[in-house]
Amino acid sequence: MTKEAAKRRRRAFARERDLVRLLWKRGFACMRAPASGSKVKRTVYPDVVAIWRGKTLVFEVKTSEQKRTIYIPREQVEKIREFAKRAGGQAFIAVKIVGQGEPWRFIPIEKLEHTSGGNFKVSLDSLERALTIRDLEKIVGMTRGLEDFIGGGI
Amino acid sequence: MTKEAAKRRRRAFARERDLVRLLWKRGFACMRAPASGSKVKRTVYPDVVAIWRGKTLVFEVKTSEQKRTIYIPREQVEKIREFAKRAGGQAFIAVKIVGQGEPWRFIPIEKLEHTSGGNFKVSLDSLERALTIRDLEKIVGMTRGLEDFIGGGI
Repeated sequence: MTKEAAKRRRRAFARERDLVRLLWKRGFACMRAPASGSKVKRTVYPDVVAIWRGKTLVFEVKTSEQKRTIYIPREQVEKIREFAKRAGGQAFIAVKIVGQGEPWRFIPIEKLEHTSGGNFKVSLDSLERALTIRDLEKIVGMTRGLEDFIGGGI
Repeated sequence: MTKEAAKRRRRAFARERDLVRLLWKRGFACMRAPASGSKVKRTVYPDVVAIWRGKTLVFEVKTSEQKRTIYIPREQVEKIREFAKRAGGQAFIAVKIVGQGEPWRFIPIEKLEHTSGGNFKVSLDSLERALTIRDLEKIVGMTRGLEDFIGGGI
């Protein structure tokens, strides 16, 4: 692995840890996948799994320095789809635009667009319309306390 | 970390991978936790998580060279209890007696005995009465095909 690749990899893991911490703080049981060997792609596990009272959310994490179309290899989508299917849950691409205070965005794999090469992509447009962490909470049926309604309403 | 400790650690990971493979083969969505740094105990994650259609099973893995009383630090039990609670699932100590063709055994944390020091243990007796992988399948509501009934009955 080149120095640059090693650096990207460390950064990617740091982002996954951020997402795990965030989801844990909101009440989910949450786990990051183990790092695979440096030469082996992580082909079995999703990057992150979050569970709340029987509802499972499965994530492939993508990081970008800027808002742009994000491409996802077909195998990665198939991997999280299979995992989510067994778990009876839902699979998402989790996108973090770094260094701009941007929140996490989540795209259900059913909303991914196809590329001509048989892979998948998140267009700029669907990135703008992506789900937020609050949307995920609604999906699993979490209800927040009164302070959240007040905070949201005023 | 000493050479001996590093060896034990590698062996423990190999056992966790075995358990993940086994559960995956039986139909579960299953994930191993990332290795923590060599000096840091794995305090956040369970060793292994398995999910099937909304039912979550959470494991702390213990390996022993022989059948004996197995001791579990209180923090480890609390860790998997909290994870299982959030997930709406159940937590188990997964025990593998190595090198004797022994199957995996699973003890629900509710069945653990207390030690005088405030920790937990699996006695030899409860190890003998532990659950099998088939029991776990029944717990999550998996039903097997006809060949399994024939295999079990004849």
